[in-house]
Amino acid sequence: MIQRSTGGFSAGQEGPAGLDAAAKAGILVEALPYIRRFWHKVVVVKYGGNAMRRDLASPGGDLACFAEDIVLMRSVGMLPVVVHGGGPQIGDMLSRLGKEARFDDGQRVTDAETLEIVRMVLVGKVNRDIVGAINVHGPLAVGLSGEDAGLINASAHRGDLGFVGTVDAVNPEILEHLLAQVLIPVVATIGSDAAGQAYNINADTVAGALAVALKAEKLVYLTDVEGIRRVPDDPATLLSRLTVDQLEDLVSDGTVTAGMIPKASACVSAVRGGVGHAHVLDGTVPHALLLEVFTREGAGTMVGL
Amino acid sequence: MIQRSTGGFSAGQEGPAGLDAAAKAGILVEALPYIRRFWHKVVVVKYGGNAMRRDLASPGGDLACFAEDIVLMRSVGMLPVVVHGGGPQIGDMLSRLGKEARFDDGQRVTDAETLEIVRMVLVGKVNRDIVGAINVHGPLAVGLSGEDAGLINASAHRGDLGFVGTVDAVNPEILEHLLAQVLIPVVATIGSDAAGQAYNINADTVAGALAVALKAEKLVYLTDVEGIRRVPDDPATLLSRLTVDQLEDLVSDGTVTAGMIPKASACVSAVRGGVGHAHVLDGTVPHALLLEVFTREGAGTMVGL
Amino acid sequence: MIQRSTGGFSAGQEGPAGLDAAAKAGILVEALPYIRRFWHKVVVVKYGGNAMRRDLASPGGDLACFAEDIVLMRSVGMLPVVVHGGGPQIGDMLSRLGKEARFDDGQRVTDAETLEIVRMVLVGKVNRDIVGAINVHGPLAVGLSGEDAGLINASAHRGDLGFVGTVDAVNPEILEHLLAQVLIPVVATIGSDAAGQAYNINADTVAGALAVALKAEKLVYLTDVEGIRRVPDDPATLLSRLTVDQLEDLVSDGTVTAGMIPKASACVSAVRGGVGHAHVLDGTVPHALLLEVFTREGAGTMVGL
Amino acid sequence: MIQRSTGGFSAGQEGPAGLDAAAKAGILVEALPYIRRFWHKVVVVKYGGNAMRRDLASPGGDLACFAEDIVLMRSVGMLPVVVHGGGPQIGDMLSRLGKEARFDDGQRVTDAETLEIVRMVLVGKVNRDIVGAINVHGPLAVGLSGEDAGLINASAHRGDLGFVGTVDAVNPEILEHLLAQVLIPVVATIGSDAAGQAYNINADTVAGALAVALKAEKLVYLTDVEGIRRVPDDPATLLSRLTVDQLEDLVSDGTVTAGMIPKASACVSAVRGGVGHAHVLDGTVPHALLLEVFTREGAGTMVGL
Amino acid sequence: MIQRSTGGFSAGQEGPAGLDAAAKAGILVEALPYIRRFWHKVVVVKYGGNAMRRDLASPGGDLACFAEDIVLMRSVGMLPVVVHGGGPQIGDMLSRLGKEARFDDGQRVTDAETLEIVRMVLVGKVNRDIVGAINVHGPLAVGLSGEDAGLINASAHRGDLGFVGTVDAVNPEILEHLLAQVLIPVVATIGSDAAGQAYNINADTVAGALAVALKAEKLVYLTDVEGIRRVPDDPATLLSRLTVDQLEDLVSDGTVTAGMIPKASACVSAVRGGVGHAHVLDGTVPHALLLEVFTREGAGTMVGL
Amino acid sequence: MIQRSTGGFSAGQEGPAGLDAAAKAGILVEALPYIRRFWHKVVVVKYGGNAMRRDLASPGGDLACFAEDIVLMRSVGMLPVVVHGGGPQIGDMLSRLGKEARFDDGQRVTDAETLEIVRMVLVGKVNRDIVGAINVHGPLAVGLSGEDAGLINASAHRGDLGFVGTVDAVNPEILEHLLAQVLIPVVATIGSDAAGQAYNINADTVAGALAVALKAEKLVYLTDVEGIRRVPDDPATLLSRLTVDQLEDLVSDGTVTAGMIPKASACVSAVRGGVGHAHVLDGTVPHALLLEVFTREGAGTMVGL
Repeated sequence: MIQRSTGGFSAGQEGPAGLDAAAKAGILVEALPYIRRFWHKVVVVKYGGNAMRRDLASPGGDLACFAEDIVLMRSVGMLPVVVHGGGPQIGDMLSRLGKEARFDDGQRVTDAETLEIVRMVLVGKVNRDIVGAINVHGPLAVGLSGEDAGLINASAHRGDLGFVGTVDAVNPEILEHLLAQVLIPVVATIGSDAAGQAYNINADTVAGALAVALKAEKLVYLTDVEGIRRVPDDPATLLSRLTVDQLEDLVSDGTVTAGMIPKASACVSAVRGGVGHAHVLDGTVPHALLLEVFTREGAGTMVGL
Repeated sequence: MIQRSTGGFSAGQEGPAGLDAAAKAGILVEALPYIRRFWHKVVVVKYGGNAMRRDLASPGGDLACFAEDIVLMRSVGMLPVVVHGGGPQIGDMLSRLGKEARFDDGQRVTDAETLEIVRMVLVGKVNRDIVGAINVHGPLAVGLSGEDAGLINASAHRGDLGFVGTVDAVNPEILEHLLAQVLIPVVATIGSDAAGQAYNINADTVAGALAVALKAEKLVYLTDVEGIRRVPDDPATLLSRLTVDQLEDLVSDGTVTAGMIPKASACVSAVRGGVGHAHVLDGTVPHALLLEVFTREGAGTMVGL
Repeated sequence: MIQRSTGGFSAGQEGPAGLDAAAKAGILVEALPYIRRFWHKVVVVKYGGNAMRRDLASPGGDLACFAEDIVLMRSVGMLPVVVHGGGPQIGDMLSRLGKEARFDDGQRVTDAETLEIVRMVLVGKVNRDIVGAINVHGPLAVGLSGEDAGLINASAHRGDLGFVGTVDAVNPEILEHLLAQVLIPVVATIGSDAAGQAYNINADTVAGALAVALKAEKLVYLTDVEGIRRVPDDPATLLSRLTVDQLEDLVSDGTVTAGMIPKASACVSAVRGGVGHAHVLDGTVPHALLLEVFTREGAGTMVGL
Repeated sequence: MIQRSTGGFSAGQEGPAGLDAAAKAGILVEALPYIRRFWHKVVVVKYGGNAMRRDLASPGGDLACFAEDIVLMRSVGMLPVVVHGGGPQIGDMLSRLGKEARFDDGQRVTDAETLEIVRMVLVGKVNRDIVGAINVHGPLAVGLSGEDAGLINASAHRGDLGFVGTVDAVNPEILEHLLAQVLIPVVATIGSDAAGQAYNINADTVAGALAVALKAEKLVYLTDVEGIRRVPDDPATLLSRLTVDQLEDLVSDGTVTAGMIPKASACVSAVRGGVGHAHVLDGTVPHALLLEVFTREGAGTMVGL
Repeated sequence: MIQRSTGGFSAGQEGPAGLDAAAKAGILVEALPYIRRFWHKVVVVKYGGNAMRRDLASPGGDLACFAEDIVLMRSVGMLPVVVHGGGPQIGDMLSRLGKEARFDDGQRVTDAETLEIVRMVLVGKVNRDIVGAINVHGPLAVGLSGEDAGLINASAHRGDLGFVGTVDAVNPEILEHLLAQVLIPVVATIGSDAAGQAYNINADTVAGALAVALKAEKLVYLTDVEGIRRVPDDPATLLSRLTVDQLEDLVSDGTVTAGMIPKASACVSAVRGGVGHAHVLDGTVPHALLLEVFTREGAGTMVGL
Repeated sequence: MIQRSTGGFSAGQEGPAGLDAAAKAGILVEALPYIRRFWHKVVVVKYGGNAMRRDLASPGGDLACFAEDIVLMRSVGMLPVVVHGGGPQIGDMLSRLGKEARFDDGQRVTDAETLEIVRMVLVGKVNRDIVGAINVHGPLAVGLSGEDAGLINASAHRGDLGFVGTVDAVNPEILEHLLAQVLIPVVATIGSDAAGQAYNINADTVAGALAVALKAEKLVYLTDVEGIRRVPDDPATLLSRLTVDQLEDLVSDGTVTAGMIPKASACVSAVRGGVGHAHVLDGTVPHALLLEVFTREGAGTMVGL
């Protein structure tokens, strides 16, 4: 309001005439029941490497838009927690350092040196970029690794993958303290064991585990597809609402494939573990997160009991 | 979200395609800085008899729409306080009871019997209707008279007007307790003196006094004109932003006239007394309150320092 | 103490000599165990239309005396809640407005217009008079309707009685907040349903329901008889103490009759529902409330397990 | 109430008929403004050796009566603090142990051995007797010495009196903690210095210093005279109210003499130091404390600004 | 640090060279896990008459050393509670007053006069000496008798022993309040019954009962032997660690004898009642308490489950 | 204690005999006044790249020893905050990536790419290593960058150095929240401006600024020299205590040289800004931190007013 023409007497020439005002009011009124419903509810948002495809640094880029959405959710009383991966950025750094990536069954084989680079990129670059993009709006975000204050207890996932970890336990106290201060935690998915050994953990899995531990209202996966489809190649067959049983059937019958399988099974576990709803959205559509949360039609696929 | 087609597999056929989604997102994003700025700020809204002109009882009527706006403001963390008058309703009841209204210089001459009827209508009818309209959305509103918990100390305004009162002191503790419980106080403008004598007080004045006592961020007058105009009869000359000095000049030079003068001077006193901004809006425009508070162009006249 | 002769040297000529001082001290000492026992305990007092028989407005009238007793109870740490009806006042207003009262089996048939008048009189007149009488002693009382903050959820009692309601649920949170601030709630017995429709409810029933919801120590009915008698017409047969079983026997064998039956059964339900004791007193005896609560002999009938 | 005849149906034969009930009610009503005024106010009561003259142990004795008064004051929300001396009891023990008492200018010359006996009697006998008498009414009193938690910092009053101390500083935190738990501190007037050396201090002085440190509403001296008189030997000249200036004049002109002088000057200092009122009463009159605090006429002399 | 040579430039000639610094560091590091483990844990320490053998008053004496240990324990976050007896001091006073001590089966036959002397010595002398010794380090200790705030409810142990009491119930609230203020309670083992009658109670028993009521981490008996030995006369057979079962066997087979039996059985009850560990130490060895609590080898006998 | 020989009956053969026990006790007793004095006081410890010289990963290495000291300080109630640099580690990574380091007047010229690598190493590697080393002892440490929650507002130090920053303001709220949870913040010295641009800031300067903002009791620089010497090359001339004036003189007269100058001036600013004492120690001496804080002789140089 303060930004209205700052000079002296200014007639409201572009004031909300007729239809325009009514349309604006309609949007605000539509958002009302959602805003009330989600008051002080935790929302865990997984922001994937694929969603960050476009230039991170540019002001109107994907990351800036994502940060704005997170800040808006917090502004209306929700408690967002961001969990991120960083596959492409890790790949870049490994190749700059001349380390060859080795994968086994889709998982990166991680020796001690690789782990150190993974951790450095996730905690020292990707996490920082996200925190920085949010904090343009004020001193809101705090970056964390799962090692901080014992947040994620991990152990080796499989003996032959090196320091690839699995989540043994989540100790959400540090997140709860930050949320109680209305701060936005941004979590890099490194865990550690009792001896202080760090492990790299799949970010989809961590997001689900944190959502359950925090009794979150929502778990949202921002990916580069608009949601789950009945016919994988046909956007017109997007499924906007699914039960966990239906989703399990879609996995069994092969409708859900490849990269979507881990997300689908994380959605099922989270909703069965007490999370209100899980969502899969296209994070490259501007403000898809807001539209999914605050409008009736939503923007992707919502999974409930 | 939960309201999405409740049946089985439903393709998102009316999902937010292209432009429509972007427009919705734009409105939500525009509202962001306002929502953040007004977090936990008190807003005193004077809801006038003239704004309630149309059928109170009908679901889409003015009162239902007003109640929705108040609930939305609270949903996004603001702390609304409603102050109301009830001139037309008082007039109706007096005539039903065969009491002739007598006015002196625009103020109702109020004998003991008239006072009892005024109080009965304001506290037992108008206040109840507003509380009821808000509480359709949940157990949110609590009706109060200025007599409750010593909220408004009053004394006779002028010897010859009977029990027409003037505000001597505001004791806002009861309002602060209710606001701390995130309840919405709805205040009927009856005050009382130390001996327990009740007085009827001008609602515009009470709204201003409460706004100052509560250190409110905003004081909003909902009337039946869209704001203050440079040329009273020309809607195209609406002034969307004024300083208190400019407003005082407009009163001196006769631009502001008649019924708007008391509101104008209450705006000036409130802003000088520490209230952030005062607003004059047309309460009969649907959701004018939301548009004024949450959009860049606003909907009426805003007065600041 | 401060009121002692305000001039200079004043000999204590009317000081508490001999017997007089001892008698005064005796009363104070007798009250001690009661005051200690009732510390921070809730007492729901039903103040009936019949108890308000005499001139409400006069300083030494029944209402002023009742208000003084309520304030004294609070002064010594009890938490009084006042519930009131207003039959005679409603009747007066209906007849002034030319509405004919229609009763069916002792209950007022209440159409929409009648309900509006009932509500206006209870909330806007009787409630206000009680709040005003208490607040002569300080900013202590807050008037409420059962509609405020969802206090009383109601529905239609019987299809053919119109808006006569029955209590479906009590949400005592607003009362608990006010009591935590050591304020005195004064409750008009209007309830509402989820759609915002108001209902008029029997005040004896509401008092009992609130006492149970608040886990009150005492539920006190102030009526115009001194209590329950073994021989209805013989004041010498007042029963000063009864168990709920005994009271039920008295109802079965016809000893308790007519107007006392609803109170008797409300007493039984309340005590069975966890209220410490229920009392029936003559509210027209000056300070009967204090004598019942703070002296060994009491003043009416006390019902316990 | 519960004590009423416990058998079956009992007619209220000794109920508060006519005048008697009215008189009882009158006393209760008279006490009301005082009880309200002193809510959560601290009252320091000096209980002197002379007031304990009669048999401490007997149930109806002075101490039992004093304890009852203290518990009543607490029951109605006041926060009493008891300060006591114990001259006669100290004298008894010294003579049993064959120590000869030596006085210089009215103060006991106190060598190390005498101090140990003084402390033992005050803390281990008199203090215990008072705590025990109060705790018959519940777990209310806690005995303290001025040495506990650094309550009273003391140093030698005069080089030649040995371990007779003067108050250097009061650290009232421990009293404030106990009062916040609504416990009744009973203080023996031993202080200590930084090196841990104990001192015996005049109880009248300690009472005044604690009252000032606690910002007490009242400081009450219970003695064996009924108050301050204009003509010392004539009870009819009791002064029921005095200003500090008047009291200073009475000391200057010799009206106040001997044993009353220290109390008079402690009253003056305390009132000048911020204590509301100081009182001198005859502690041997049953319940004089209650009558002074809760009745209009009072029972002794009250000193104010 | 501040105490380092206060003059100008001082070379660190006696700085922690080589081995010495390492040794110091080693001790500090060894204490670390214990300090962390006992953070905010309650430790009840029984300080016995026999442990106070040597001159109480001398600065380097046993009591000063004990006080220092208690203050150190509190400094590192533990919550010590001191319980004391005073047999020798009671004996001295009884003989000074010419009362002959009479024992029956090891327990003092206690008539009313003896009780008064016992109480006077315990509360007014021994308790005061301990409080004074601790408070040389700051306003830390508060002396209590079991009579205060209903801490120890007692009754006669055996009809023919007079006022020798047994613990019926512990009401630890007053201790919890003081511990919450980080104060050090020092408890004299006098209890009282509902009628206010005091009783003298065995201090070993009281210490155990308080430890259980406070859910203490440790119960420590400071005696004049270094602990429990396999061969009573052979110090080389000290048992540094025992289970409660082992300790019971040692009592059964006669290894534990005489004065140690009550302590042994109090240790067993306390550990079975939920206390972490019980300890028996030689309180005359300087700082045995610190060594037992903060070093790996300990200093006496520790009893656990 | 629990670790004592776990088998059955074990005689205390290696119990603290004679001298050894006394020596242990002496160390513990000496530490007492320091532990008490520093209770709940903030200590900012700058852990420098040079102090981490030796193998970080090895269990008995410098970092493990440092972590142990930090945990011990916290165990006894102090509130440590760790600030670290990482020059050598940054240099390693730059050379691995083929970036040539360029220095101007001792400060690294930092272009955008260099900044990203600096941040990645500090936040993603050095900070993680320190957090990991501390968290071996429990979920205690939380890693932070100065970008988190707006902790450090920075701007460009000099136009030609690129993204080398200077501290404009410290917003210590996030540190205060973590300290209130008794967590240990570990801070990487990256700051950011309002537009979200990150800057690399000198760690000595940041440590001083945080100490002042947190009103720390101590600011400790762990370096690779044992403190400040009168004759730089002569260890025997270590100055164990200095005033800020004396330290300024030593800088003026050239005694303090080169690398020590920035630390010396940070010490002076911090102490002048309200920090209790500043210390310079040799971080490669095992447990120098503990010896400095908890022993009388200390281990390095202490600077006070």
